[in-house]
Amino acid sequence: MLVIGIDPGTASTGYGLVRQSSPEGNLEAIAYGVIKTPAALSDSQRLLLLNQELKMLIDLHRPQSGAVEKLFFQRNTKTAMAVGQARGVILMSLAHAGLEAAEYTPIEVKLAVSGYGAADKRQMQQMVRVLLGLKELPRPDDAADALAVAICHLHSYRLKTMESG
Amino acid sequence: MLVIGIDPGTASTGYGLVRQSSPEGNLEAIAYGVIKTPAALSDSQRLLLLNQELKMLIDLHRPQSGAVEKLFFQRNTKTAMAVGQARGVILMSLAHAGLEAAEYTPIEVKLAVSGYGAADKRQMQQMVRVLLGLKELPRPDDAADALAVAICHLHSYRLKTMESG
Repeated sequence: MLVIGIDPGTASTGYGLVRQSSPEGNLEAIAYGVIKTPAALSDSQRLLLLNQELKMLIDLHRPQSGAVEKLFFQRNTKTAMAVGQARGVILMSLAHAGLEAAEYTPIEVKLAVSGYGAADKRQMQQMVRVLLGLKELPRPDDAADALAVAICHLHSYRLKTMESG
Repeated sequence: MLVIGIDPGTASTGYGLVRQSSPEGNLEAIAYGVIKTPAALSDSQRLLLLNQELKMLIDLHRPQSGAVEKLFFQRNTKTAMAVGQARGVILMSLAHAGLEAAEYTPIEVKLAVSGYGAADKRQMQQMVRVLLGLKELPRPDDAADALAVAICHLHSYRLKTMESG
């Protein structure tokens, strides 16, 4: 299965495409990076650009499922609103492409990737690097976070398959 | 000019289409109502439905400009995030249709519609009713709010035209 993981942000949204060919198979990073939108544009133009870039990524790689980081705690309601706007466009774009949009909290992602819910950013990036067999730490941070979300989704999917199997 | 005003919400998003044929002409309500999405659907499916319903309204009425209520203060960050998601899809949908997505705070809307920034909901609805020449108060509340946003946008547009004229 090929999964697209997404870490929503206002200025920069991370994405990571991870494939696992069989339930016990190795994980493989197909592509990862960030979608950035120019701050000079209006909110609505930036959100449209995010939608279009995401659509292009989905058309190009044709993932079978999507997963998005679920954030409850933001510094303030203004930030939450702004991140929510990006998140809304991301969830909608996944649904528009006929993809599931699974949601995982940061703790669920940390547990799935490192087995440790309080893992720090550096530890998480090391685990993502090892699990995907990458030579270097995935960069930038938002892309690494998105890869972690994709790994978490594959992990959860595997567990569900095992339970029902 | 025909304007679509939108009051974003998670369960119910209000819309109101208001036309003003000349800068000093009467305001006319072309259509108003709410877009509701079933709570049984996933977030991403509800957001996709919101996008599709909005697209249908825009295709049907062909407004020349859009305006959305700008909300800073929500009860908590979880609510702000949820409303932000709906807002993101709305702003993106307007941009996708090639429409401006002007944003106004509740105080700006109240000042434009009633001349009084602390007007209460009932006073606002009465002013909207009078300005649009409606026989009854516009219902439901979210639709009345959306009509008020559209009126505010036409008002602001008129002021800009007068300043530059």
